[in-house]
Amino acid sequence: MPSVVLIGSVALDNVTTPAGERENALGGSATFSSYAANLFAPTGIVAVVGSDFPAEHIEAFRQRDIDISGLAIEDGPTFRWTGVYDGDMAQAKTLDTQLGVFADFKPVVPASFLDAPFVFLGNIHPDLQMDVLDQLANPKLVALDTMNYWIDSMPARLKQVIERVDLLFLNDAEARALTGQHNLFRAAHELIANGPEIVVIKRGEHGASVYTQRETILAPALPLKRFKDPTGAGDTFAGGMIGYLAAHGTLEADTLRNAALVGSVMASFTVEEFSVDGLARATRDDVQRRYDYLRKMVAFGPLC
Amino acid sequence: MPSVVLIGSVALDNVTTPAGERENALGGSATFSSYAANLFAPTGIVAVVGSDFPAEHIEAFRQRDIDISGLAIEDGPTFRWTGVYDGDMAQAKTLDTQLGVFADFKPVVPASFLDAPFVFLGNIHPDLQMDVLDQLANPKLVALDTMNYWIDSMPARLKQVIERVDLLFLNDAEARALTGQHNLFRAAHELIANGPEIVVIKRGEHGASVYTQRETILAPALPLKRFKDPTGAGDTFAGGMIGYLAAHGTLEADTLRNAALVGSVMASFTVEEFSVDGLARATRDDVQRRYDYLRKMVAFGPLC
Repeated sequence: MPSVVLIGSVALDNVTTPAGERENALGGSATFSSYAANLFAPTGIVAVVGSDFPAEHIEAFRQRDIDISGLAIEDGPTFRWTGVYDGDMAQAKTLDTQLGVFADFKPVVPASFLDAPFVFLGNIHPDLQMDVLDQLANPKLVALDTMNYWIDSMPARLKQVIERVDLLFLNDAEARALTGQHNLFRAAHELIANGPEIVVIKRGEHGASVYTQRETILAPALPLKRFKDPTGAGDTFAGGMIGYLAAHGTLEADTLRNAALVGSVMASFTVEEFSVDGLARATRDDVQRRYDYLRKMVAFGPLC
Repeated sequence: MPSVVLIGSVALDNVTTPAGERENALGGSATFSSYAANLFAPTGIVAVVGSDFPAEHIEAFRQRDIDISGLAIEDGPTFRWTGVYDGDMAQAKTLDTQLGVFADFKPVVPASFLDAPFVFLGNIHPDLQMDVLDQLANPKLVALDTMNYWIDSMPARLKQVIERVDLLFLNDAEARALTGQHNLFRAAHELIANGPEIVVIKRGEHGASVYTQRETILAPALPLKRFKDPTGAGDTFAGGMIGYLAAHGTLEADTLRNAALVGSVMASFTVEEFSVDGLARATRDDVQRRYDYLRKMVAFGPLC
């Protein structure tokens, strides 16, 4: 039985960045988050792909011991996203989205997943996120990711879902849009007052800030010599963080702090290469090395 | 004798931000950097003001024990800068610059300053920075700040100065412009290969990254509830960092790391209020409190 269940997309991406381009690249929130989480804890995904989805990718999930009993294979094309990053690659420009079988995605959580203590609701329609919440037994932590599209088009519905989750992932622009608060500290605390105990504000190349009622954690991003493709960085961060929390089974402050740095470390593998190429080859030793390296960059001594 | 000497501007600023506006506000690189540095080490400034400069500001320098024997008072108007910040206040829009007596500023380092071990060359004409360098005896550390204007208009001359300094402060856009390297890690190391041992890349609300040949230090910015005016934040960071280094008299890695966090803490006081208002009232206890607070936000434990 997986201790982490991740609901989201499994996609084929066409991505162009200043570092090059890639067609039919494995992508999607369930993909990146599960590749990261299962380095720490048994992980299962709930997602859908089309009949055109390459068998090699399914085999790769299996090879990584990701439980794909919740991966439906439907007649029709797999979700495809085409996007471009320019300049500092801070933001993707979407050129095309073909939902394919994802348009009718009705996530069904397999019986063996229902008692999973750690759950990640990737960025999908808030109704579907709510539907998954209703299927779950009594998870210890439900984390949710969303995007501007849902914030703009159905803020009320989204807020109903957010009320029910424990951890909310969003980027700085989304936090501002959702709360109307420009100041991120205030925005995070306004969100905390309305549901989630933990708010993670992703800041791209600047890392992420984790807010709780009592604590703020600043997880820096690893300065990288090579930066090829930011696609999936946020989902990788989320998967790494949740996987680490699941491995420790606690949300205690010190664990939460380390989990945020783990998320940052995992994201560093993703952005170094296209698709999951960097993440897929990262070992626990690699994680340990980068974690120690990053930890040292912020190892401030007492003021004297 | 001051152990820190700061050469730069003392200005009167007209500043408008989303939080309000202020006219005739005390500003300038020598002002902000000295207000920060002298909380840690005896500090002197080399600058010029006009005959219109309010006596209360001169008195305030004295009250803070900032050595102003290098502050020339010339006939004519004080340097005035008028600027506006919008939105996230990441960048100022300059509406007007009146150089006044600053136009003919020829920094003369007083005899009692010549042996100062720590020197900050604020953002002024590279020729003047070079001229000050020639006046100094044998400082332990010379730090330099610059801006896009000099990078664009006299890159060759600027590079000659940079070759001679130990520590270079610049923001991310300036690092990219000066090196042609988009990747900041590579840009910093290219700069290190050409002179300074230490490169500090300021990243505004995201903090600063400090690079040496062997180390990277990530100094996060303090998440603030109140953010009124970023004017002087970079100079405050520099002053705090150099003041702390001067107090310890070493550039050893652990000291450098703490110094970077001190810079970040000092900048947090500046941006909370207009002009030097926040910085001026910060005590050593306040610094200690914020340092501990910020340090805890990045106090990651070993991975287990």
